[in-house]
Amino acid sequence: MTVPRPTPKKNLENRERVGLLMVHTGDGKGKSTAGFGMAIRAAGQGMRVVIVQFLKGNRDAGELHAFERFPEITVHRAGEGFTWEVRDDARQAELAAWGMDRARDAIADGVDLLILDEVNIALAKGFFPLTDLLAILADRPAGMHVCCTGRNAPGPLMDAAQLVTEMRPVKHPWDQGIVAQRGIEF
Amino acid sequence: MTVPRPTPKKNLENRERVGLLMVHTGDGKGKSTAGFGMAIRAAGQGMRVVIVQFLKGNRDAGELHAFERFPEITVHRAGEGFTWEVRDDARQAELAAWGMDRARDAIADGVDLLILDEVNIALAKGFFPLTDLLAILADRPAGMHVCCTGRNAPGPLMDAAQLVTEMRPVKHPWDQGIVAQRGIEF
Repeated sequence: MTVPRPTPKKNLENRERVGLLMVHTGDGKGKSTAGFGMAIRAAGQGMRVVIVQFLKGNRDAGELHAFERFPEITVHRAGEGFTWEVRDDARQAELAAWGMDRARDAIADGVDLLILDEVNIALAKGFFPLTDLLAILADRPAGMHVCCTGRNAPGPLMDAAQLVTEMRPVKHPWDQGIVAQRGIEF
Repeated sequence: MTVPRPTPKKNLENRERVGLLMVHTGDGKGKSTAGFGMAIRAAGQGMRVVIVQFLKGNRDAGELHAFERFPEITVHRAGEGFTWEVRDDARQAELAAWGMDRARDAIADGVDLLILDEVNIALAKGFFPLTDLLAILADRPAGMHVCCTGRNAPGPLMDAAQLVTEMRPVKHPWDQGIVAQRGIEF
């Protein structure tokens, strides 16, 4: 597609950059998907993005194919299978710890946006302590944005965040017997 | 980045395709952003996507630059300026009507996913009747997915939808005096 070249507005330039801690939680759809939308938005602004995906490991996800077109975006898949079909907790814990190491690397590297996808689930499963995550995030460079997704976000993480959105399910196709749709849910 | 080539699982193949009507509403962040995440997910699966953006017209939005990398995605910008700084309602109404014509074209063309971004705002402003939108959507091909975003989604649209998510603002950076951040909000 063709989009007119950007014509930056004065009021959008020289604005104060504040590294936001953002949380997408709740039982509804759109938590990870909004994170992925944010990833391409940031990449479209020339920013460097690292996504660590905890627990989810479907290799045929449309977003993974899409991210291949973005040299600005690095994805670390710290999980295997769908979140709802995770089998081996020891293996998942090992992968989750590896994912947290990738998050540490991204912070040391000073990327612009770090997305910790489904990190709330990894926390709930006890794969690493919340205090570790909070300490890592508190020590990040001042302008670095972080987005944590997953249902049941812990209170202290939401307390530390500047943005928290709850995705609330009003209606879900599964309740109507409709299976997950390619290109929509994966 | 490099992602391993897809290894489609048997249980993900030959599944029933059901064209979903989806609504992202509520006062929180992530409604459009989740729509954009869905757009690149679908494009990553080789699907054709049309996005009609009502009211919003910031040309320097990161997502627009990102969508340039996707021949599968066509964006029609049926708006000018930010939603919160819309000035000329007559001009916006004209653009909105043009946007609805683009939606009709996309349906006639049989695209896989049609995203009507901020269409709920255009409806609330009376730029076109809800009955028209519902009639257009009811007549679409059976497998076509549609995602309507914007706060205050009208009841009959939610009634017709298979998926409705309310993005509920728990915490917003603006409340803390933080201006919209490049790469995050645009």
